[in-house]
Amino acid sequence: MIRIALDAMGGDNAPGEIVKGGVQAARDLNLEMILVGKSPLIEEELSKHDVDGLAISIVPASEVVDFEEQPVQAVRQKPDASIVVATRLVKDGKADAVVTAGHTGAAMVASIFTLGCIEGVERPAAGTTYLGIRKPTFFLDGGLNTDCKPEYLAQFAVMGTAYAERIMGIENPAVALISNGAEDNKGNQASIEAFKLLKRSSLNFIGNVEGMDIPGGRADVIVADGFVGNVAAKLSEGLMEALLDIVEEKVGARMSAGERERVLMPAMAELREMTDYQSVGGGLVLGLNGVAASAHGRSTAKAMVSIIELAKWAVENGLVSAIREGCQSLGWGES
Amino acid sequence: MIRIALDAMGGDNAPGEIVKGGVQAARDLNLEMILVGKSPLIEEELSKHDVDGLAISIVPASEVVDFEEQPVQAVRQKPDASIVVATRLVKDGKADAVVTAGHTGAAMVASIFTLGCIEGVERPAAGTTYLGIRKPTFFLDGGLNTDCKPEYLAQFAVMGTAYAERIMGIENPAVALISNGAEDNKGNQASIEAFKLLKRSSLNFIGNVEGMDIPGGRADVIVADGFVGNVAAKLSEGLMEALLDIVEEKVGARMSAGERERVLMPAMAELREMTDYQSVGGGLVLGLNGVAASAHGRSTAKAMVSIIELAKWAVENGLVSAIREGCQSLGWGES
Repeated sequence: MIRIALDAMGGDNAPGEIVKGGVQAARDLNLEMILVGKSPLIEEELSKHDVDGLAISIVPASEVVDFEEQPVQAVRQKPDASIVVATRLVKDGKADAVVTAGHTGAAMVASIFTLGCIEGVERPAAGTTYLGIRKPTFFLDGGLNTDCKPEYLAQFAVMGTAYAERIMGIENPAVALISNGAEDNKGNQASIEAFKLLKRSSLNFIGNVEGMDIPGGRADVIVADGFVGNVAAKLSEGLMEALLDIVEEKVGARMSAGERERVLMPAMAELREMTDYQSVGGGLVLGLNGVAASAHGRSTAKAMVSIIELAKWAVENGLVSAIREGCQSLGWGES
Repeated sequence: MIRIALDAMGGDNAPGEIVKGGVQAARDLNLEMILVGKSPLIEEELSKHDVDGLAISIVPASEVVDFEEQPVQAVRQKPDASIVVATRLVKDGKADAVVTAGHTGAAMVASIFTLGCIEGVERPAAGTTYLGIRKPTFFLDGGLNTDCKPEYLAQFAVMGTAYAERIMGIENPAVALISNGAEDNKGNQASIEAFKLLKRSSLNFIGNVEGMDIPGGRADVIVADGFVGNVAAKLSEGLMEALLDIVEEKVGARMSAGERERVLMPAMAELREMTDYQSVGGGLVLGLNGVAASAHGRSTAKAMVSIIELAKWAVENGLVSAIREGCQSLGWGES
């Protein structure tokens, strides 16, 4: 049974929604759930649910990293913080994956310090499945690395390929670099150099793609630095919300009250559900010697279940060893 | 009467649609139109239209820059290219603005070589009015400068502020930097340094904004490097197209044929018109000692009229001197 170390104290809705999501995941996904944090608080939350027959345990941690804390400092000064303790369970072989909705930076630092990066990976990256308007595209880095050396981008391509193969089940996934034009010579300094590295690699590198190709599904994996990736992901989220509001207004204005209720409301509900960024539930941090997943700070129990499921898939499908093999086969793991 | 030098040979639909747009602009916008290019071809196109009483002249140019040519080389080797000749008319005081739908890079190079940059501006930037989902936001750089020094970004903020004041008529426009988070310390190396420059400036700098704030209209002017700006603009274009297709499908599936015709088709037509990237018609190149505007290569006559009108506004409202004053008041024009 796969064991998930869940940071019960991390997130805007912790511990209530986190524990609730953990209980639900233990039941629905047949997992062993290790809740990490302040025992009395966790026990109080657990008492609200029927946990009979579920594999749920508590590992105490006396501290919590707050959202405003500086990540490196916080992780160094709070060795008994829930995110640090939860990550250590993976390192010590007592859990298969760590999941948190807490401070992303602190989670990242705890992961790097505790688990370390896979040989050949210089920087872990946040992956996210771009709401497949046409078909799902895996998009990274979602925001962990703002300034990227060409090598980082090339490593992201390796990690994204491993993800697409193992988690999304895509054979020989097509990987592309985001750029300001589709031509080979387009790009900024880092992406132009990354293009050359990828061209020489054994990946199925299809070259540069443009902004419209992200929703267009032209590649299975699209690589960007974390600055561009973060702007693109948040722009998409905001634009879809804004556009659906306008659609509702413009279409609704031409309808009778009855038509709005019968046609528009269910259609809009379906569209909002389809494009709900929250339902994606965060993403995996790729490139670590272990499975780590970060959910949005505002995650509810439902979002937690979905990210716990993602972490479970990553464990079941050997994502870490797939990335390791990918790095080795490209000769990047030997330096 | 404002005089526009129009590159009649530039663009996928040249010279037919370009000349047609020029004639229409001369009539509807009360302009003097100087058509630059191969005289026989231009005369042939003109013969298809009623040009009686319109202020239209031809300035011959024997060469054309093709889309695949390397910009600097092309401009150097083809001194009699239509874009070069048209730009020179502005330099020589024979036209007030130059407009082209041809090779953007060549237009940019011709502008820099011929007109030169305003003192204090190191790089011109492409500005674009982001399809105001909520309210119009001016967004730059749209793709001319992929790697930007912090100073370039700060200069873009000055140019964008001048544009918002003079062209959009916004008093004391709020200018923001795009970033991977709203906090002051978020950003990549260049944007973090630009933040500090802008914080010390006399601009109405409101700090960092995120991707969702571009359609959200949180600032009047949003500054990005040309790589991010290009990805964001094209992503928006692609996402809106894709999402409207899905809306049509999902809403339409719940309707009768009669409802689709009466409600859905006109609503979708209105939404597509609202969000039609083409209707924006390209943008001005800011930071030059003269007004220059570049339209999409695929522009039709209608798109040409809209960009010619934009160039006319820029002349009428003194955009160049506004940018010059903006640079001087910040002390950036004195170096």
